[in-house]
Amino acid sequence: MIIVLKNNATPEQINHICEKVKELGLTPQVSRGVERTIIGVIGEEEKLRAKPLEAFPGVDSVVPILRPYKLASREFKPEPTVFEMGNGVKVGGKKIIVMAGPCAVEGRDMLFRIATQVKKAGADFLRGGAFKPRTSPYSFQGLGEEGLKYLREVADEVGLLVVTEIMDSRHVDLVSEYADMLQIGARNMQNFELLKEVGLCKKPVLLKRGLSSTIKELLLSAEYLLSRGNFKVMLCERGIRTFETATRNTVDINAVPVLKEETHLPVLIDPSHGTGKRSYVGPVARAAVAVGADGLMIEVHDNPEEARSDGEQSLLPSGFEQLMKELRPIAHAVGRDI
Amino acid sequence: MIIVLKNNATPEQINHICEKVKELGLTPQVSRGVERTIIGVIGEEEKLRAKPLEAFPGVDSVVPILRPYKLASREFKPEPTVFEMGNGVKVGGKKIIVMAGPCAVEGRDMLFRIATQVKKAGADFLRGGAFKPRTSPYSFQGLGEEGLKYLREVADEVGLLVVTEIMDSRHVDLVSEYADMLQIGARNMQNFELLKEVGLCKKPVLLKRGLSSTIKELLLSAEYLLSRGNFKVMLCERGIRTFETATRNTVDINAVPVLKEETHLPVLIDPSHGTGKRSYVGPVARAAVAVGADGLMIEVHDNPEEARSDGEQSLLPSGFEQLMKELRPIAHAVGRDI
Amino acid sequence: MIIVLKNNATPEQINHICEKVKELGLTPQVSRGVERTIIGVIGEEEKLRAKPLEAFPGVDSVVPILRPYKLASREFKPEPTVFEMGNGVKVGGKKIIVMAGPCAVEGRDMLFRIATQVKKAGADFLRGGAFKPRTSPYSFQGLGEEGLKYLREVADEVGLLVVTEIMDSRHVDLVSEYADMLQIGARNMQNFELLKEVGLCKKPVLLKRGLSSTIKELLLSAEYLLSRGNFKVMLCERGIRTFETATRNTVDINAVPVLKEETHLPVLIDPSHGTGKRSYVGPVARAAVAVGADGLMIEVHDNPEEARSDGEQSLLPSGFEQLMKELRPIAHAVGRDI
Amino acid sequence: MIIVLKNNATPEQINHICEKVKELGLTPQVSRGVERTIIGVIGEEEKLRAKPLEAFPGVDSVVPILRPYKLASREFKPEPTVFEMGNGVKVGGKKIIVMAGPCAVEGRDMLFRIATQVKKAGADFLRGGAFKPRTSPYSFQGLGEEGLKYLREVADEVGLLVVTEIMDSRHVDLVSEYADMLQIGARNMQNFELLKEVGLCKKPVLLKRGLSSTIKELLLSAEYLLSRGNFKVMLCERGIRTFETATRNTVDINAVPVLKEETHLPVLIDPSHGTGKRSYVGPVARAAVAVGADGLMIEVHDNPEEARSDGEQSLLPSGFEQLMKELRPIAHAVGRDI
Repeated sequence: MIIVLKNNATPEQINHICEKVKELGLTPQVSRGVERTIIGVIGEEEKLRAKPLEAFPGVDSVVPILRPYKLASREFKPEPTVFEMGNGVKVGGKKIIVMAGPCAVEGRDMLFRIATQVKKAGADFLRGGAFKPRTSPYSFQGLGEEGLKYLREVADEVGLLVVTEIMDSRHVDLVSEYADMLQIGARNMQNFELLKEVGLCKKPVLLKRGLSSTIKELLLSAEYLLSRGNFKVMLCERGIRTFETATRNTVDINAVPVLKEETHLPVLIDPSHGTGKRSYVGPVARAAVAVGADGLMIEVHDNPEEARSDGEQSLLPSGFEQLMKELRPIAHAVGRDI
Repeated sequence: MIIVLKNNATPEQINHICEKVKELGLTPQVSRGVERTIIGVIGEEEKLRAKPLEAFPGVDSVVPILRPYKLASREFKPEPTVFEMGNGVKVGGKKIIVMAGPCAVEGRDMLFRIATQVKKAGADFLRGGAFKPRTSPYSFQGLGEEGLKYLREVADEVGLLVVTEIMDSRHVDLVSEYADMLQIGARNMQNFELLKEVGLCKKPVLLKRGLSSTIKELLLSAEYLLSRGNFKVMLCERGIRTFETATRNTVDINAVPVLKEETHLPVLIDPSHGTGKRSYVGPVARAAVAVGADGLMIEVHDNPEEARSDGEQSLLPSGFEQLMKELRPIAHAVGRDI
Repeated sequence: MIIVLKNNATPEQINHICEKVKELGLTPQVSRGVERTIIGVIGEEEKLRAKPLEAFPGVDSVVPILRPYKLASREFKPEPTVFEMGNGVKVGGKKIIVMAGPCAVEGRDMLFRIATQVKKAGADFLRGGAFKPRTSPYSFQGLGEEGLKYLREVADEVGLLVVTEIMDSRHVDLVSEYADMLQIGARNMQNFELLKEVGLCKKPVLLKRGLSSTIKELLLSAEYLLSRGNFKVMLCERGIRTFETATRNTVDINAVPVLKEETHLPVLIDPSHGTGKRSYVGPVARAAVAVGADGLMIEVHDNPEEARSDGEQSLLPSGFEQLMKELRPIAHAVGRDI
Repeated sequence: MIIVLKNNATPEQINHICEKVKELGLTPQVSRGVERTIIGVIGEEEKLRAKPLEAFPGVDSVVPILRPYKLASREFKPEPTVFEMGNGVKVGGKKIIVMAGPCAVEGRDMLFRIATQVKKAGADFLRGGAFKPRTSPYSFQGLGEEGLKYLREVADEVGLLVVTEIMDSRHVDLVSEYADMLQIGARNMQNFELLKEVGLCKKPVLLKRGLSSTIKELLLSAEYLLSRGNFKVMLCERGIRTFETATRNTVDINAVPVLKEETHLPVLIDPSHGTGKRSYVGPVARAAVAVGADGLMIEVHDNPEEARSDGEQSLLPSGFEQLMKELRPIAHAVGRDI
């Protein structure tokens, strides 16, 4: 931690800060520059983080040196995290995993038809929302437990894993009963009570980045999960909010190499939400494989005109099959399978 | 709803869309322009909103005409909403209400000292977090129910109302027992399960705008509350996330006149979170009064150096008292009291 | 300057960096912390800024301590800059200056009518574009020199000063001949060749903040002017680009107290471009006065329906007169005149 | 163009608007919906664009239907633009073109060394700035004409084309004399006087997207060039400004499929400025090839520690050579060469 002082900071103010630092068991080092004095603090930075140093008289700014996350960092665990799902699927391994299915579970039949086709095309997980976060209270809110049942039944029949969103701390047991992986959506990335509950359960988690969350904040939300004992966490870049309105969101493709340097956790890209338009999903999925993502999540619907949400960004099953074929040579070109 | 067609849309595609529109009991009106054909749809737009029209072949884009919120709109209720709190305080009336207190409740003594002083300076509500949303799992998470008790006791002793944050759908009864107004924080503005629960209770609500939520999304979140029967809602602009890093957030001062046109709900500004730095709080509070806000929420701490959160943006009690004095002539200049 | 090393930086890498620092005549101070080593550099930081320290092996990040601008800073000149215009108008003094007029000069008659009315209502400057920056090549591009002539004639007749935009380094002499103050628009804030030319002339300058420029970048652009000898610079906050689409731009009201702390230069707010809608201009102008701005720039047109640009955000002369009346008590409440 | 009326618009207001529309030679079509009346306008939308319709009484909002750019659109020219450079290099063809070299031309020797190596690795263009746009007036501003000479000489010797930035309308002849392609930088994307001058010359242009420019604005800036007769335009996505600070900019990977749909102009990605850090350049370059970009621009320096700008994001020549090898199989996987 570096404490930068104002150019008119008094000796008394400097002493006062040094005393506080020492009280915490840390060592202050004062460097008097030509134009500014700075105080470097040696020791566990965490102790100091809790102090509002910027509130001290004479302080201009405070610069933390260490990452605020620990368990999620590469420094804590240099090798990439790989975890096995029940049926032999490995998350974070050489094979890029693919999650596909409708935005929302609308019924058993449609789910079965779509699941059959995405399985055939090479998907590993069936996705589908039973609890839907909708901006408007008047939009379809999902089938709830009924939807969870369909997901489990269909996935078992077809031979897929289930990933589905959990929106409320009260639903952890319920969703865990049916799903293989719990998805925490973008709007809940900083729903800390939900993170705490999910951190205590043993289910693998797909943690989506918030619409305007920094990578650091995403890793701190992951830290909520890890620090409660759940290390089976996959991160998801699903597009951030920017000034650009030509697409629903802006996929932050840079986030993949940044995350690969900062954390050992696997990273997935969701080009469906990331673009919001069917014709953009394919190109961005190709980019995701090339940049080094460990997984893809893609919305597929066999009758987008009647979809109860996100029809405009869903691929047709035939389009999904075609995309999977296009992705394979790119995966091989970067030393991966899909 | 206006459906804009691609310039190469076929007559079959146009017919197909018109048929779907009619199936919903709506009337399509086709206008063939020089360069484009558009279809205007007359009737209840809500029916059409659920359809993913952009997924239809031949469609270029879809332009909604009506606001997606109803109960929150000025068209639904032209006159401003004013609601009374227990002790004669009116929210949304001529008097601008002031909420003040520490970021977090750290103990009973500090709360009492601060409450006494903000009451004396003219505050109406005591603010203070018992449940704290913290970006890092290693930061102070609040005193929980103990904090709620202190808030209630101290507020009653001093003669203030209590506003405090609720973070979880499981806590509605608990927090309602102690608080006069429930605050839904920026990170939970789209925690829809929480909105649903709070919508069902009768407590007044302070709904904070999310860090990167549009004004339209804020009003749709309010609509979750209103559509469940809770109309005692005050909206809060607390700064949005932008590219600027000189301040913690960017107060969207424009939001006040926009909200005043779009909705009947009262609007409060939080210059403490909106700026993140003590010396900026006063000027922005002055701007808030001048622009037409109905309330202010200001963090006050009597020992910011020891504050367990947000010390750098908290006013000293003396600074708060001074600010209240500065605000009065501005309030009078715009025909208000404070 | 603080150089933060990677946690696996080798002694050779550290030595190598220290050698480079010494070569520049600066003094490195190595602090070995529990988890990280950092190198503080004492001496003229400017010398080091030119070095791409992040490219050195072993370096994790580089943290500048000093502001990169000098002449624009409060540390260089603690007292506020006040400069006199020809006719007794002082920029940066107790009186808040007001610039008003049409977006573009469309003709002599309209300019005269509007100028007469804004003068009567209390404006100090006549604004109006002769060279117009237009997003589309098919939009009205301004009257050029003819527009400049009208501005000068009308302003002299009515008793106002002229502020008008300069868009090209080749036009400095031309525009200087007619205008009292040169406006550098948001899109040209980082047109460095233009800044260099304007820095060499003696005309007062109104420097508008770019749509997505940070406050630091605004001050560095001002530094281009100051470092070439032109100290008569007023800064303008005119709204930044954010994700919010309810308004044309988002006025960064926080920028005023930030700039007041960071720089001695006077600050003006442009609520017309900052909001983009007539009905929002008044409330934000009131906020601007309350927050401490030294000036306002407001678009006024007496026939907005026929305006060749920005008609939707222009006040009618009667609306402007009314606004000026509303602003006076607020100005007095904050110890200013208008 | 759709004109949406307020729900309380009067018949007189509606008539007034219809009259104005007819005066322009256009045909208004009034649709009275249950909740709103809208006016569709048939005819050349461009005529109406110049009118500030939102300033008319009774108007709630105005929705343009057509793209504001014409010559740059796919509707105007459905097939992709391909143009030949002097030496057989085709821009926009099957082969992805690569521009590489130092950020700034610092001297003839370094330029020659780097050019030799990037040529060997497969680059088509030598990049390097002779005029440098620098945020701070105290940073290295480029060698000017001397730098241009070195570029020309070295490129001819080595067998590369020259692309270099032009920053000022006065330099068109000078830079055109030396360069094969003129680069308009992000900060000048809306320097309309520069666009006009460059539009009149016959040199191919690389037009970089502004830091916070929408795709629509980028295409309108291209329209400035095309409408003056210069159709040899390549667009460049170089990262936009967002709230994320982990990278210098955020590469908008979505922009490639959007641009491919909207325009016939070829698209290049600059992962060096787009990420700002050497270790991220490779992954994002791979994504650029996979997503469908027609070109890449990459900064290469053989002594980044001594680079006078952007050393931290420059690849070493060996790193560039390695990257080119990695890109080839990805290019083949998407049906391209590089």
